Amino acid sequence: MAISKADKRNKFLAVFERIREELIDHMKSENMPEDAVTWFNENLVYNVPGGKLNRGISVVDTVTILLNRPLTDDEYFKAALLGWCIELLQAFFLVSDDMMDASISRRGQPCWYRVHDVKGLGKVHNIAINDSFMLEGAIYHLLKTHFRRESYYVDLLELFQEVTYKTEMGQLVDLITAPEDNIDIRKYSLDKHTFILAMRMCGVPDVYEINGKTIEAYKEADRILIPMGEFFQVQDDYLDYHGTEAEIGKIGTDIVDGKCSWCVCTALTYGTEAQKQLLYENYGKKGADQAVREQAVKDMYNDEQGLNIPRRYEEYQKKAVAEINAMIDQVPEPEAHEAGKGNRLRRDAFRAFLSKITDRKA
Amino acid sequence: MAISKADKRNKFLAVFERIREELIDHMKSENMPEDAVTWFNENLVYNVPGGKLNRGISVVDTVTILLNRPLTDDEYFKAALLGWCIELLQAFFLVSDDMMDASISRRGQPCWYRVHDVKGLGKVHNIAINDSFMLEGAIYHLLKTHFRRESYYVDLLELFQEVTYKTEMGQLVDLITAPEDNIDIRKYSLDKHTFILAMRMCGVPDVYEINGKTIEAYKEADRILIPMGEFFQVQDDYLDYHGTEAEIGKIGTDIVDGKCSWCVCTALTYGTEAQKQLLYENYGKKGADQAVREQAVKDMYNDEQGLNIPRRYEEYQKKAVAEINAMIDQVPEPEAHEAGKGNRLRRDAFRAFLSKITDRKA
Repeated sequence: MAISKADKRNKFLAVFERIREELIDHMKSENMPEDAVTWFNENLVYNVPGGKLNRGISVVDTVTILLNRPLTDDEYFKAALLGWCIELLQAFFLVSDDMMDASISRRGQPCWYRVHDVKGLGKVHNIAINDSFMLEGAIYHLLKTHFRRESYYVDLLELFQEVTYKTEMGQLVDLITAPEDNIDIRKYSLDKHTFILAMRMCGVPDVYEINGKTIEAYKEADRILIPMGEFFQVQDDYLDYHGTEAEIGKIGTDIVDGKCSWCVCTALTYGTEAQKQLLYENYGKKGADQAVREQAVKDMYNDEQGLNIPRRYEEYQKKAVAEINAMIDQVPEPEAHEAGKGNRLRRDAFRAFLSKITDRKA
Repeated sequence: MAISKADKRNKFLAVFERIREELIDHMKSENMPEDAVTWFNENLVYNVPGGKLNRGISVVDTVTILLNRPLTDDEYFKAALLGWCIELLQAFFLVSDDMMDASISRRGQPCWYRVHDVKGLGKVHNIAINDSFMLEGAIYHLLKTHFRRESYYVDLLELFQEVTYKTEMGQLVDLITAPEDNIDIRKYSLDKHTFILAMRMCGVPDVYEINGKTIEAYKEADRILIPMGEFFQVQDDYLDYHGTEAEIGKIGTDIVDGKCSWCVCTALTYGTEAQKQLLYENYGKKGADQAVREQAVKDMYNDEQGLNIPRRYEEYQKKAVAEINAMIDQVPEPEAHEAGKGNRLRRDAFRAFLSKITDRKA
């Protein structure tokens, strides 16, 4: 009997409780004053578990598929812990990004840095900078406590460091270049790394053989995860225009911002001169009439007799998913006598990962 | 012929040039836009090499003493690179601390976050948060590039992560507790870790034997480095009251802040009732007359016929240094046939490290 989505989430959340206690106990063992321990606890509770948790839970799912059997309690805990490390990393970025973007709210509550303002700690409200650091620091403390004896420990450290550095590079580009010039590859980068993380935990070696053929497992994974990322990006662009706030959790701004989105590129490729002219006049124009201009572009995208971006997207999606599935079908499956070992790539793991992306909208 | 202090510094600075180029080349290879590469370059040049560089150079010095011979070019580069990683870590903390403390200047120039204001990037002046992250991220990129094949690579990663997390914990305490309640152990923590870093690079094993006696090298080092840290802290307290701005690079504020310093503890232990009364009335009192009250405390500390804190400090220092030297004398030296190996603790390494601390003031 399949476990329900809510049960899955609750089981995952129960691991957060253990992790939180462990981190707090560590603070106490370092003789931190009570005020500081309480502060750190609030930081964890406010910022880490409040999201959708898709990424964190995805580590557990991928590990389960790769191992091809139910996880032991210890395996579940370890996979969930890695999932929570991804969630901690995301919390680190969100707390600091919100300060850099001067955002107001996050996940339906005031941004953490504003909570300090509320607490009347005006002078030191930038303390949220250090709070974000501590969310990052907690990752490595947890990895050390639970994985230092594993052969893949150093791979885990490098994975987290690499995705962190790349994300920071992406954030720099975001902050200093105009929105129309940059494509946000950061969201998917974290997704991709959850998959690699699960591979590492399952002990998938860098190189192995199947029927005399050499498999470079992490290159093989990239071969599929990279086109999946392109599909993810196109979908993101499409949802920005076509998704409702309920579906995507925000109101799209690409048209007003003039972003180089898949939608506008498609319109410029297939549009008539008149349609292109409409884009030149209305795309990326801010000002009092921006809502009107945005609607004009949307109407043109929507036109079933004209550009019909939804139909083009459906076609694109069908084709992209079929291509990715064809690539997945070429992944060599483990031989029968190795099927139970779990430390080999498996097609189902990619398929489940892909379906999480295709199911992103309601 | 001994190399001059200036030559030593210039040689160390030359390595920074190589490191900077390497980091910039990496950004370019990741297809970062030119503006972002330029920005990162400015971040590195503005924030990393402008300090005293004592900690960074100390790694090179300790490695040289442990190896007990001149370094090869490659060894020098690697030791210096670790030294620059310590300087990067310090830069990461300074850039972010300055934002949290709303500081004005650092190392004789405006704080980095204020430079952005100057550049008219008001809306995103918090970009300095991400800039500080990137200084931290650069550490792990450099360690991966140059040390991943070394057996002690994972030890290096853990050392940096541990000192980072501990420093963040210290910063949290600093920010949420009143200055009189907290003792800043952070500065020395970084010093201590430069020593351990050098031990790791020299391949000093966790456990080895000398004449049949088991040495736990890193515990043995702690046995000496921890009391050295206490001495460092007392000296810091003393210099806050007695050092000139030229000597210590800042104006001491412990008396006005009411900090629990070695000086006031000593005064309360040895003072007469009248002297304690003077402290109660004048110590830690902010307001229009704080300079007068501070001077009254200083005069009492200075009184050669009375408390004479400078004499008591001289006595303390003499005793502390003698005790630490006695501890150092108990470190088992490598046996003659292992003297050239370099991967053993050596008394001279601790002595040189101690002399750097005792020479802190002019």
